[in-house]
Amino acid sequence: MAPATPRVVVKVDLKKRPWEQEQPLHNRWHPEIQPVGEVKAGEFFRVEMVDWTGGAVKDDGSAEDIKSLDLSTVHYLSGPIKVVDEDGVAAKPGDLLAVEICNLGPLPGDEWGFTASFDRENGGGFLTDHFPCATKAIWYFEGIYAYSPQIPGVRFPGLTHPGIIGTAPSKELLRIWNERERQLEESGLSSLTLCEMEEGTPEWERIAKEAARTIPGRENGGNCDIKNLSRGSKIYLPVFVEGANLSTGDMHFSQGDGEISFCGAIEMSGFLELKCEIIRNGMKEYLTPMGPTPLHVNPIFEIGPVEPRFSEWLVFEGISVDETGRQHYLDATVAYKRAVLNAIDYLFKFGYSKEQVYLLLSCCPCEGRISGIVDSPNALATLAIPTSIFDQDIRPKTQKVPAGPRIVRKPDVMKSTYDGKLETTRNPNSSSYS
Amino acid sequence: MAPATPRVVVKVDLKKRPWEQEQPLHNRWHPEIQPVGEVKAGEFFRVEMVDWTGGAVKDDGSAEDIKSLDLSTVHYLSGPIKVVDEDGVAAKPGDLLAVEICNLGPLPGDEWGFTASFDRENGGGFLTDHFPCATKAIWYFEGIYAYSPQIPGVRFPGLTHPGIIGTAPSKELLRIWNERERQLEESGLSSLTLCEMEEGTPEWERIAKEAARTIPGRENGGNCDIKNLSRGSKIYLPVFVEGANLSTGDMHFSQGDGEISFCGAIEMSGFLELKCEIIRNGMKEYLTPMGPTPLHVNPIFEIGPVEPRFSEWLVFEGISVDETGRQHYLDATVAYKRAVLNAIDYLFKFGYSKEQVYLLLSCCPCEGRISGIVDSPNALATLAIPTSIFDQDIRPKTQKVPAGPRIVRKPDVMKSTYDGKLETTRNPNSSSYS
Amino acid sequence: MAPATPRVVVKVDLKKRPWEQEQPLHNRWHPEIQPVGEVKAGEFFRVEMVDWTGGAVKDDGSAEDIKSLDLSTVHYLSGPIKVVDEDGVAAKPGDLLAVEICNLGPLPGDEWGFTASFDRENGGGFLTDHFPCATKAIWYFEGIYAYSPQIPGVRFPGLTHPGIIGTAPSKELLRIWNERERQLEESGLSSLTLCEMEEGTPEWERIAKEAARTIPGRENGGNCDIKNLSRGSKIYLPVFVEGANLSTGDMHFSQGDGEISFCGAIEMSGFLELKCEIIRNGMKEYLTPMGPTPLHVNPIFEIGPVEPRFSEWLVFEGISVDETGRQHYLDATVAYKRAVLNAIDYLFKFGYSKEQVYLLLSCCPCEGRISGIVDSPNALATLAIPTSIFDQDIRPKTQKVPAGPRIVRKPDVMKSTYDGKLETTRNPNSSSYS
Amino acid sequence: MAPATPRVVVKVDLKKRPWEQEQPLHNRWHPEIQPVGEVKAGEFFRVEMVDWTGGAVKDDGSAEDIKSLDLSTVHYLSGPIKVVDEDGVAAKPGDLLAVEICNLGPLPGDEWGFTASFDRENGGGFLTDHFPCATKAIWYFEGIYAYSPQIPGVRFPGLTHPGIIGTAPSKELLRIWNERERQLEESGLSSLTLCEMEEGTPEWERIAKEAARTIPGRENGGNCDIKNLSRGSKIYLPVFVEGANLSTGDMHFSQGDGEISFCGAIEMSGFLELKCEIIRNGMKEYLTPMGPTPLHVNPIFEIGPVEPRFSEWLVFEGISVDETGRQHYLDATVAYKRAVLNAIDYLFKFGYSKEQVYLLLSCCPCEGRISGIVDSPNALATLAIPTSIFDQDIRPKTQKVPAGPRIVRKPDVMKSTYDGKLETTRNPNSSSYS
Repeated sequence: MAPATPRVVVKVDLKKRPWEQEQPLHNRWHPEIQPVGEVKAGEFFRVEMVDWTGGAVKDDGSAEDIKSLDLSTVHYLSGPIKVVDEDGVAAKPGDLLAVEICNLGPLPGDEWGFTASFDRENGGGFLTDHFPCATKAIWYFEGIYAYSPQIPGVRFPGLTHPGIIGTAPSKELLRIWNERERQLEESGLSSLTLCEMEEGTPEWERIAKEAARTIPGRENGGNCDIKNLSRGSKIYLPVFVEGANLSTGDMHFSQGDGEISFCGAIEMSGFLELKCEIIRNGMKEYLTPMGPTPLHVNPIFEIGPVEPRFSEWLVFEGISVDETGRQHYLDATVAYKRAVLNAIDYLFKFGYSKEQVYLLLSCCPCEGRISGIVDSPNALATLAIPTSIFDQDIRPKTQKVPAGPRIVRKPDVMKSTYDGKLETTRNPNSSSYS
Repeated sequence: MAPATPRVVVKVDLKKRPWEQEQPLHNRWHPEIQPVGEVKAGEFFRVEMVDWTGGAVKDDGSAEDIKSLDLSTVHYLSGPIKVVDEDGVAAKPGDLLAVEICNLGPLPGDEWGFTASFDRENGGGFLTDHFPCATKAIWYFEGIYAYSPQIPGVRFPGLTHPGIIGTAPSKELLRIWNERERQLEESGLSSLTLCEMEEGTPEWERIAKEAARTIPGRENGGNCDIKNLSRGSKIYLPVFVEGANLSTGDMHFSQGDGEISFCGAIEMSGFLELKCEIIRNGMKEYLTPMGPTPLHVNPIFEIGPVEPRFSEWLVFEGISVDETGRQHYLDATVAYKRAVLNAIDYLFKFGYSKEQVYLLLSCCPCEGRISGIVDSPNALATLAIPTSIFDQDIRPKTQKVPAGPRIVRKPDVMKSTYDGKLETTRNPNSSSYS
Repeated sequence: MAPATPRVVVKVDLKKRPWEQEQPLHNRWHPEIQPVGEVKAGEFFRVEMVDWTGGAVKDDGSAEDIKSLDLSTVHYLSGPIKVVDEDGVAAKPGDLLAVEICNLGPLPGDEWGFTASFDRENGGGFLTDHFPCATKAIWYFEGIYAYSPQIPGVRFPGLTHPGIIGTAPSKELLRIWNERERQLEESGLSSLTLCEMEEGTPEWERIAKEAARTIPGRENGGNCDIKNLSRGSKIYLPVFVEGANLSTGDMHFSQGDGEISFCGAIEMSGFLELKCEIIRNGMKEYLTPMGPTPLHVNPIFEIGPVEPRFSEWLVFEGISVDETGRQHYLDATVAYKRAVLNAIDYLFKFGYSKEQVYLLLSCCPCEGRISGIVDSPNALATLAIPTSIFDQDIRPKTQKVPAGPRIVRKPDVMKSTYDGKLETTRNPNSSSYS
Repeated sequence: MAPATPRVVVKVDLKKRPWEQEQPLHNRWHPEIQPVGEVKAGEFFRVEMVDWTGGAVKDDGSAEDIKSLDLSTVHYLSGPIKVVDEDGVAAKPGDLLAVEICNLGPLPGDEWGFTASFDRENGGGFLTDHFPCATKAIWYFEGIYAYSPQIPGVRFPGLTHPGIIGTAPSKELLRIWNERERQLEESGLSSLTLCEMEEGTPEWERIAKEAARTIPGRENGGNCDIKNLSRGSKIYLPVFVEGANLSTGDMHFSQGDGEISFCGAIEMSGFLELKCEIIRNGMKEYLTPMGPTPLHVNPIFEIGPVEPRFSEWLVFEGISVDETGRQHYLDATVAYKRAVLNAIDYLFKFGYSKEQVYLLLSCCPCEGRISGIVDSPNALATLAIPTSIFDQDIRPKTQKVPAGPRIVRKPDVMKSTYDGKLETTRNPNSSSYS
C-alpha cells in the first residue's frame, strides 16, 4: 500500500439503513457517545457517511418523502473519532484540532443528490411563507458538474463540503446549549432543537435525552453549512472532551450561502479524506471566549485553493424592509430575504418557475453578503449569482434585442400538496408566489 | 481632444467648503432638487466629489473632529445629473438606468483618507457598545495601495467604490420612506434619518423638510456601501423621476463588507468616470416590486473584472448567540457581530489593539457572508480576511514555532475621550474591551 | 444505478503488466488499431489507464529503473474508443470531437507518482546538458495535495490532466508524419519517433512498422502535455478516421509548463470520466489547415473552472542568449531555457539542490510564458512560480532580516551514475551544475 | 501636500516633440547618460513618458505614419533616475533595485493609443511574411476599458504596463552586448540593434555610437514587454552603475503575450508611480550569472494583485511544424507562431479580417504558453484568449444553432500599400492571407 492511501476509519454500507450500519451512526451531540475509531495526528484517513436523511429521500418522481420526512432523526453523523498525537496521547480540552480536508466527494455508485424545501408545518425554510409546500429536485453528477432534470438549463461545478463537522461538547457546554435553546423553545420559535426520546437501553435513553440536536451550528462547529469548507480547507475546532471526538456528516455536493430552502444543498452521501493535527492549548492561544464562560468560542478556518472560479456575477440587493413594506432596524436577515426574493422574481422572467429558482439559489454556488450593517435603519445584503451556470445570458440587456418567444423551463420541480393554512402578513398587492 | 477624454460634468474645489462649491452639492433625496448637469446615453463623463463629511475631518493628530462631527449635514453628494437618450429624450419613470463605472479614484493632490468610529452618543457603529469612544486612523495612498501610520503592519490594495450612487425618488416614494422610517424613529431606534431644518429660501426649507436623509440605502440605491461597486462594475438603477437625476458621493478607497465602524471605509474625496444607458421600461422588464406598491424595488449590478485577487483567507465564524450568551433566533446581524468580535480578539493576539482591528476590519477588503440562515435557532455568519494584507503570518501554527517577543503594533489609533455612561448588558466575565 | 454513474469503457488491472491487460493497450498511432470500446455522444463514461511506463518505475530507493527505462515501448495508451452519435452513426473524418473532461484522478489504492529526469544517453530532457544523470523523486498524494520525501518543504495541489489525449490519424496523415519526422531523424536530431519492430503476427508487425510513435504532440492532439487540460476542460479534436478512435494515457497528477525534465510531470496511473459530442463537419467549420494539406490542423480547447488558485507569483526572465553568452535570434526555446536555469539557481540559494529544483519546476504548477517574441534579437520568456507551494518565503527581502543558518533540504532526489562523457559548450566560468 | 502625493521626477509636455522636452529623453542604453532626477529609497514618485514613437503616430485615418516610421530613434525613454538610500548613499553595482509599480496609466487628456504592424521592409513583426504591409488601429480608453473603431465588437480591460523599465549598463556589459549582437548583425539577421549616428557634440556622438539600442530586452531589463509588469508588481533589477540609473518608457495600455505585431501593444504616453528600495549586494545574494561573466543575469519580478480576472478561455495549440509542413526540432518560436496563426484563422470565421485579429491578439490580454518543450521533435505552444472580450460567443458550438447571416466586422484596420516583393516559402495551398 502506498503511504498516501487513506485508511478507512468509518465505512458505511448504503444498502443498509442508518441504524443497521456496522459502526453506529449518531444524530446528537453528547460527550459520552463512544468513539467508533481512532486516528493519529498526521495520519491520512477516510470517513464515509450516509446522506443527512440516512437514505429516506429517493430518486423517484414525488416530493412526498420530503413532505413526511421525520426531522427528529436527522442528521446521521459518522464518528465520533478519537484523535491522539504521535505519542498516542489524546487531544485534551483546551487544545485546538486542525482538520485538513484533503479530498471529498460522492461515494462511487451513488453519484446523485437532491435539493428540497420542506412543508411549512414540517421544517419550513427561509422563505416558507412564500413556498409552503414541500418540493424536490434531483441532481445527477458528471464528475465536477451537477445537472437536474427538474431545473433545466443550468449546470455547474460543485463546491463540495460537509455540512456538519464538529467535536463533541463537554457536559458543561451541553448544559449551556440546552438551557439557552430551551428559552427560545419556550417562546415557541422552534421545535427542532430539543431531543426526542428514542428507544434503547436506559443508558442510551439518558444520553439521548441529555444530548443536543444537530440542527444548528454551535461552539463545536457542527451544522455550519459553510460552502467554503471544501477541498484543501483547514478548520480549527475547539476540543471540549478527551480525544476531541470528531464527527461529520451531511455531505453537500454544492450549496449557496445560506442554504435557504433548509434541505437546500445538493444533499448526498459521500466520503471525506482528512488529516488532523493537535495544537496543544490552542483554544487559549488562538480563540477568545465571547460570553460568560471559557467555552463560548467559535471555530475558524482557512479556505482551500481549488474553489470553482467564476468571473462574472449578477448581484441582487436587499434592504431591511420586508415584503409588506415594513421597516426593520439593521436586520441582516430581513435584508438577505429580500435580496433572495428579488433574485427569484428576476430569474422568473427568464423562464424558470419560482420554485425552481428557490431550490437553485439554495444549492448553486451563489454568495450571500452582508454589505452594509450600519446605515440606520437599513441593513443591506447582497446575493451574487455566477452568470455562467446558466445556458442563457441572464444579464439585463442595454441594447434592444428582438425578443424571441419566452422559453419556459420544463419540467418543473416536484411538488407536494400543502394542507396547512397559509396565514401570512404579506400584502396581497405584492408579487404573488405560486 | 481624444474621444475618450471624459467630459467633466461635476467639478469640486477642495479648497472650498461644501456649500461654497460652484455647482451646489446636496445631502437629501428629493425629486425637486434641480440637476446640476446633463449627460447623454453612451457619453463618457466625469463626476468629482468631496468626501462624505465635506472636508470636516482633517489629517491631524486628534479624533476630536470625529467626536464632534455634525451628522445632520452629511453626506455631501454631487449631482443630480439628468440623463437623456441619444435623441435628447429624458429617462422616464419606469426606465432602468445602467451606470457603468469605467474608472474612479482619489482626486490628484488629495491622496489620503480616514477611517473612524463615532462616539456612542453621536452616531455609534456596529460595535459601539464595545467601542464607545470616537477613534480615527489616517490612510495614505501609494497608487493602488493604502497604509496607515496608526495601524502599522498592514498594507493592501483598494477596492475603490462610491458609497452612494442613486437616482432621485419620486414624491410618492419619498412619502413611503418618510412614513416607514418615522415609525421606527417613534420607537426610539434612530435619530439620523429625519431631516433637520436648514436655513434658506422658503422653497428650499420646504424641500429640505420633505426630503429624505442619505444615511440608509433604499429603493433608489443610495448609501449602499457595497464594496464591489468598483472599476468595471455596472449598476442598474430604477428611474423614479424624469431625467433619472443621478447623484453620487461618499467615495471609499476601500471598505470591508458591512463597513462596521460606520465611518468605516477609507473615506476620501474622489472622481468617477461613468457611462449611462437608458433601458426603456426596464423597471417593469427586469425588476419586480416587493411590497405594497410598484416602487418597492432594489437595484441590481454586475461586478467588474479588476477586483484585487487574494487566494488565502482566514475565516471567522459567528452564531446568533450574543456576547452575554443569549440565544437569538436566526438573526444574521447577531451572528455577524459575533464573527467580527471573534476576529478582533484573534488579531489582538498578534499585537494589534482592539481599536486598530475594529477600524481595520471596517476598511480592509474582508468579506462578510451569511453562511447559514436556516439551521434553527442559529444563523451562522462568517468574516473572511485576506491573509496577505499583513506583514506577518496570522494563521494558527500547527507546528510549534519558537515564540519571539510579541510585537505590539505602535502607535495606536487616535482616541477621543468618552463622556457617556456605558450601560451595556454584556456579562462582566466576557472578554473585556478597552 | 444512478444515471450519472459513469460506464467503465476501459478497465486496467495494475497487478498485470501492460501487455497482459484484458483490453489491449497500444503505444503507437495508426488508423488500423482496433477499438476496444464504443461510446455514444452524450454518454458519461470512464477510462482507466496505467502510468506511461506501464509500471516499470517503482517506489523504491533507486533511480536505476529510470536510467534503464525502455523508451521504445512507452507510452501505453488506453483505447481506441469508437464514438457514435445518438443514432449510432460513427464520427466521420472532417467532424470535430468535443471531449469534456468531467473528472479525473489517481486509481484507488495507487495514490502515488514519480518525477524523473533521464540519462543523457537515454532520453535526456530540456536541461540534459546540465543534468546528465538519471534522477527520480517519489510523490505521495493526500487528496488534492502532493508531497515528496525527496523534495522536502514543498506541497501543492495538483492540476491533474492526461498527458496524452488524441484521435487516430488517417493513413494520409500518418504518411505525412513519418515523412517529415524522418527528415529530422536523418539529420541526427532524435531517435524516439521512429517505430521499433515488435514481435507478433505479420499484420501486427506491419501496423507497428507503419505507426507513429507517441512521443510528440501532433495534429491529432496526442502527447500535448498541456497542464490545463484538467477537470472541466473541453478539448476539440479533429476526426481523421471513422469513429474518431479516441485514445488517452500518460496521466499527470501535476505538471509545470514545458514538463522540462521529460519524465517531468508527476507520472501516475489514473482514470478519466469523459463525455463526447460530435460536431458534424466541425473540422471545416472551426479549424483551418495550416500547411500543404487539409490535415494540417491543431486541436483547440477550453479551460475548466476549478484550477488551483494562486495569487502570488515570483517570475524569472530569460532572454535568447545561451549559457555561453552566445546570442540567438528570437529563439523562445533558448529564452525559456535560460529562465528555467535562472529559477533553478535562485531556488538553490534557499536550500534545495539543483536536481531537486529541476524536478520540482518540471512538475509543480508553474507557468511558462512567451512574453516577448518580436524585440530582435532577444526573445523573452518568463517562468512564474506560485510562492505558496513552499514552506518558506522565497521572495527577495527588501528589508534586512537576521539570517538564520541556511537549511539544506534533505534528503535529496535519487540519482543514478552517469557513464557518458559530458561534452558541453558551456563556459567553465558559468554557474556549475552538480 | 499629503505624504502620499507622488513627487513628479520626470515631466513631459505632449505638445513638444521628444527632443524639445525640458528634461532630455534618451533612446540608448549607456552608463554615461546623465541622470535627469534623483529619488530616495522608499520615496513615492512619478515619472511621465511620451509614447515609444515620441508622438510620431497620429490618430488620423491612415497607416502611412506607421509605414514610414523612423525606427532608428525609438524608443524615447524617461530618465535615467539616480537612486540613493535613506542616508543619501547611491545604489552600487552588485545591488538589486526593487521597483514597485504602485500605479500607472495614460496621461490626462491623452487617453488613446494605437496598435500597428510594420511594413515588412521597415521593422516587420512576428508574422510579417503573412502580413507584409503596415496596418494601424486606434484605441480609445473609457477608464479601465479600451475599444477600437477599427476592430469592432471587442472591448476589454487593460493590463497596463511599461514596455521598458531598466537600469543603465556598465561599460563592460555594454561591450558584451555590442559584441554578441554584432555577430548576429553580421549574419544579416537584424538591423535594429546597432546605433545610428546622431548629430550633437562630439561627446554626445561618442556616447550615441557606443550605446546600445533599446529594441531587445537584456540583462538590465529594458524592453521586456512583459504584460504582467502592471499595477502592484515589483521588479528586481540588477544594478550595474553607481546610482542604478533607472529609465522607463514605452507604456502599453494592454498587450498580449509576445506582442506579436511588434508595434503590437496598445501604445500610449503615460505615467508611472513608483517606489524603489535598494537591496545591498542583492545581485550576489539573489541572482546567479548564467554566462561567462558575473554580469549575465536577468531581472525577476512579482506579479501584482489587481490583474483583470477572466475565467473562460479558448486555447489554440501550435506545434513546431511550420506553415509549409516542415518539421522543426523543439522550436517554441515556430510552435507559438502556428498557435497564433491557428487563432487568427479561427476568429476570421467569426467575421473579423485577419489583419484585425493579428492586431487584436497582439494587444488584448491573451496568454502565450510554452506547454511542451521536451516531446521530441515537437515543441507545443498554446495561445489562450479570454472569451469575454468579444460581444459574441466565440466558442465552438456542440449543439446545432440556426446560423444567422455572418456579420462581417466593419470597418477594417487601416492599411498601407506594400511595395516590396513577398517571397515566402509558404505553400500556395495553405490558407491564404490577404
